[in-house]
Amino acid sequence: MSISDSNISIPLLEKIDSPADLRKLPVEKLPQVCSEIRTFLINSLADNPGHFASSMGAVELTVALHYVFDTPSDRLVWDVGHQAYGHKLLTGRREAFSTNRKFGGLSGFPNPDESEYDTFSAGHASNSISAALGMAIASKLKGEKKNVVAIVGDASISGGLAFEGINNAANTPNNLLIILNDNDMSIDRNVGALNSYLAHLTTSKTYNDFRFKLFKLLRKLHLVSDRRKGAMLRFNNSLKSLLSKQQNIFEGLNIRYFGPFDGHDVDTLVKVLNDIRDMEGPRILHLRTVKGKGYAPAEADPASWHAPGRFDPTTGERRDSKPKGNTPLKYQDVFGNTLLELARENKDIVAITAAMPSGTSVSTIQAEMPHRVFDVGISEGHAVTFAGGLAKDGMLPFVAIYSSFLQRAYDHIIHDVALQRLPVVFCIDRAGLVGEDGATHHGAYDLAYLRTVPGMTIAAPRNEHALRNLMYTAQALRNGPFAIRYPRGGGLEINWKNEMVKIPVGKGEKLAEGNDVVVLSIGTVAADVEKAIDRAKSQGISVAHYDMIFLKPIDEDILREVAAKDCPVITVEDGTVKGGLGSAVSEWFASNGFMRKIKTLGIPDMFIPQGSPAQLHEMCHFDVKSIFDAIKEIVKN
Amino acid sequence: MSISDSNISIPLLEKIDSPADLRKLPVEKLPQVCSEIRTFLINSLADNPGHFASSMGAVELTVALHYVFDTPSDRLVWDVGHQAYGHKLLTGRREAFSTNRKFGGLSGFPNPDESEYDTFSAGHASNSISAALGMAIASKLKGEKKNVVAIVGDASISGGLAFEGINNAANTPNNLLIILNDNDMSIDRNVGALNSYLAHLTTSKTYNDFRFKLFKLLRKLHLVSDRRKGAMLRFNNSLKSLLSKQQNIFEGLNIRYFGPFDGHDVDTLVKVLNDIRDMEGPRILHLRTVKGKGYAPAEADPASWHAPGRFDPTTGERRDSKPKGNTPLKYQDVFGNTLLELARENKDIVAITAAMPSGTSVSTIQAEMPHRVFDVGISEGHAVTFAGGLAKDGMLPFVAIYSSFLQRAYDHIIHDVALQRLPVVFCIDRAGLVGEDGATHHGAYDLAYLRTVPGMTIAAPRNEHALRNLMYTAQALRNGPFAIRYPRGGGLEINWKNEMVKIPVGKGEKLAEGNDVVVLSIGTVAADVEKAIDRAKSQGISVAHYDMIFLKPIDEDILREVAAKDCPVITVEDGTVKGGLGSAVSEWFASNGFMRKIKTLGIPDMFIPQGSPAQLHEMCHFDVKSIFDAIKEIVKN
Repeated sequence: MSISDSNISIPLLEKIDSPADLRKLPVEKLPQVCSEIRTFLINSLADNPGHFASSMGAVELTVALHYVFDTPSDRLVWDVGHQAYGHKLLTGRREAFSTNRKFGGLSGFPNPDESEYDTFSAGHASNSISAALGMAIASKLKGEKKNVVAIVGDASISGGLAFEGINNAANTPNNLLIILNDNDMSIDRNVGALNSYLAHLTTSKTYNDFRFKLFKLLRKLHLVSDRRKGAMLRFNNSLKSLLSKQQNIFEGLNIRYFGPFDGHDVDTLVKVLNDIRDMEGPRILHLRTVKGKGYAPAEADPASWHAPGRFDPTTGERRDSKPKGNTPLKYQDVFGNTLLELARENKDIVAITAAMPSGTSVSTIQAEMPHRVFDVGISEGHAVTFAGGLAKDGMLPFVAIYSSFLQRAYDHIIHDVALQRLPVVFCIDRAGLVGEDGATHHGAYDLAYLRTVPGMTIAAPRNEHALRNLMYTAQALRNGPFAIRYPRGGGLEINWKNEMVKIPVGKGEKLAEGNDVVVLSIGTVAADVEKAIDRAKSQGISVAHYDMIFLKPIDEDILREVAAKDCPVITVEDGTVKGGLGSAVSEWFASNGFMRKIKTLGIPDMFIPQGSPAQLHEMCHFDVKSIFDAIKEIVKN
Repeated sequence: MSISDSNISIPLLEKIDSPADLRKLPVEKLPQVCSEIRTFLINSLADNPGHFASSMGAVELTVALHYVFDTPSDRLVWDVGHQAYGHKLLTGRREAFSTNRKFGGLSGFPNPDESEYDTFSAGHASNSISAALGMAIASKLKGEKKNVVAIVGDASISGGLAFEGINNAANTPNNLLIILNDNDMSIDRNVGALNSYLAHLTTSKTYNDFRFKLFKLLRKLHLVSDRRKGAMLRFNNSLKSLLSKQQNIFEGLNIRYFGPFDGHDVDTLVKVLNDIRDMEGPRILHLRTVKGKGYAPAEADPASWHAPGRFDPTTGERRDSKPKGNTPLKYQDVFGNTLLELARENKDIVAITAAMPSGTSVSTIQAEMPHRVFDVGISEGHAVTFAGGLAKDGMLPFVAIYSSFLQRAYDHIIHDVALQRLPVVFCIDRAGLVGEDGATHHGAYDLAYLRTVPGMTIAAPRNEHALRNLMYTAQALRNGPFAIRYPRGGGLEINWKNEMVKIPVGKGEKLAEGNDVVVLSIGTVAADVEKAIDRAKSQGISVAHYDMIFLKPIDEDILREVAAKDCPVITVEDGTVKGGLGSAVSEWFASNGFMRKIKTLGIPDMFIPQGSPAQLHEMCHFDVKSIFDAIKEIVKN
């Protein structure tokens, strides 16, 4: 059932098929549009789960932006798509919204392939200012008159990339408008000096209101030009600094600062945006918003309503928040609990997360030993270099970052950790296909990009016990960088809490004997391989199966054992086939002069869209049936 | 001849074998130590070239730091080692300094493998604050009382990583001291809002001096505690902001700010460092220095004296600054000239460099069309995302970044360019082994880490004509991301300026027929392969040679042609053997069921030290002789 068929009442929204329709409405109608968007989002997301609280907090901003700016000619660049559901509803995707995050449906983030209103990829934080600056300068060079707006959250703006963007924007002729959507929250509670600073800024609201009104008056009277306004603003901010005993960072960097304003007052937003729309030079507009605004349960607990799963729209009761009884823990929780267990024994262990304490379950150790846990905010590069410094002077850092976000720290892994052989344990969550978050979030590349790094140990557990043993081994050895990658979601074992043992680095494990085909797998795909082998066995095909456990160093004893058999080889991994296990095995066979046909199963060399993990495994041909088919096919030839 | 045998007079310096010796001297002797360090550096670097001007500018700072702090127990973390030669001289490496940057000798950058005084890798900019913060917190957790100092240049501090470090440092309990060595220069003239800001800060010198003296007085009178000092500082900075009509960014971020002071007054430096050494909480000390200080030719032209090559120490005459007559251009200059040529015809072309206009020769196009060139400062991530924004709205950006620095932009390449199939041309300079700059600067990984990225075209020219044709093709096609990698240094052709033609993407070229062995190479190593083949031919071995040109898409027609021959295969590339051409070829043969022995020559899976390119090619076994040996060996088996 699509929402528009249901009994919710959205008389204005259902007539808005594009922002042009919105712009035909009188400004007095906008509060009702906002209210209808909220009604729609609540009812739609109750059934078809997605990111909830961020978009609820950005409703007025979204409406005001599309009302004031001439989209899609004017360019809105959203920073992280969590906040952009309202934008999707206003830009022709209301009917399709019931397919949000589904295979073949709408992407959960702005996606340029989906709509001309989605100007840029928005799955990784802090990129909007840089991208929007590029668009603003392209418009200038082409002699067009586009307005370009970057909409960035207070968590995203503290990332190094956003700072680089601001630093460059402030020094390059352009008319970029940066809107800071400040709800003092990222996915979890925010951290960092810049965020403390933003919180303080807000305290001077009266002064700022006065200042802004003064401007508008002077401008009306033609007593102040755009040029002179800049200087006056700086003087006023200096005055404010003195009064409030603090500094305006943005003015220091030569970007005009306006705010903070109430981000839920759509009338004011429209007025302010109209006032500053055509000003020259880079500007920042600071809005205070409430994450989850307009839905009481979400306002009360915005972190857990970031992506709440299904819920009852009238009561707010969560329908799939807690696993029932005997469900296996998520891998992240096995990681979190195990890290706490290890840290109790090994006093050198510290934990680092980049704005994801809940998502990585670093929160588990945080509760008991907060002084040994460092949430560095959205700054994956710093997280890794900081870990390098800690490791250099005697600590044993576990850095927990999602696979696709760790891409931001690639150089830091090479230059600040591996080059110095520092003992940093990389716990790479969300490795492999992650499902509904789609192309920007799949952890497809970590096996491949880490394998090129000298001295890096790379492992992937096939189950919870193996994860715990790898973590135990990494801290017991303390010998250079050690990466452990594990998937999103739940594991296999109810009794996950084994007695941990140290396992030999670079040694895999034989899981099944066989003579017709050999399957080499790494990570949790082993379970599907086992099922496929069972099916093959029932058809009389005898398949050997090895869990390599380590991609690097790779187990050459196993490879020699495999080479001694006269049969083809299949590799299976939940990672790109360009550079991972399949490549490592192919390299070894070719360079050692063993002649075997090798079929490499894994994520193909393309960007994979959103969908359920089962749908995506099938699409990528490493679900049970595809593995079984590959076994049959390779035996036949 | 080592400098200490020469006739320069360094009576104090020659008795300093460690900082403990320095600390025995009375403070009045320090100016002489500084002077002797300069004498030594000038005379040593005149013969054995290295980074000159940065270290000359940091002499007083270096002496004052080792005088005031208890190194190596206290931790000095240098950001980019250009400035750290004085540090090497004071820490037991004066005698060895004649081996600086040579194979088997001292590393040109701080190197923890070389000395306990070198606390962290320092080849890539902006990492010192993060690493030092890790050390400061390690010290705190271990209950030690180490002082930790990050010494960062004004160019490095504008990198996103440095901002992430500051943002985290300001909000985490620690006693980190950040010293900003501000000479208003990176390698080239500096850019960015933060740098403009720093220049302005300096103008209030009198006020700052007054403020600092006031503090010391109040402290002496016990009228101000360390706690109250923070509040007072902030008040004073607010006052200063009002007077100077600007903001103190660092105080805004809650880091105590001191300065600016004259970084060449060693007495004052010692006093100031003593004053702030034991304060609690994060602090920043801003020093103004002159790049090249104490050597008139370098002070007059600091950019060209960054790494001047050999020179006459008395006159400053450069000995190998200009290539003589008929020397081939450097690849970077062929790139720079060609880009200008293309940009004259194609109005959509823009150029982006990250603080390396001279190093990449983007300066060539900058001179003629400055409005189409963007030097974004040390911010590789922003450079790439910014290029994505430009490309999205109709421009055709050429992004010129060194291979090892592009590692900083890995996620940006994936998420902000490749995912959207945006036409950005990556011109990857310094690809492969770079020689004397050593492990941190070798461009060893680009082929491997780019090959995993879907939709990325990856090419490497074997000579200047091919480079030009690839650049021409990339802009003519304008079809998704296109990477062209080329090495440091000079090319082969005097007549580099061919008539450019569009070449087919994914097609290699047969350079020699043969039946005993096939060599597949990519990039400029083709020349050495040709020499090795000539030697093999003289011994009766018939070798086929293909220049693959493209790593991705790889030329499957060539691979099928090779597979049809019944002979072994050798791959040669100036890049890591883990994931590059050798892997791609091995994958293709294994997955297509062709059985061939494949020998992969390239950079082995280890960090390679400094040395001449010839020495390093030999060490890595892809010099002419090694290729020849590999041919003989593989034919024999």
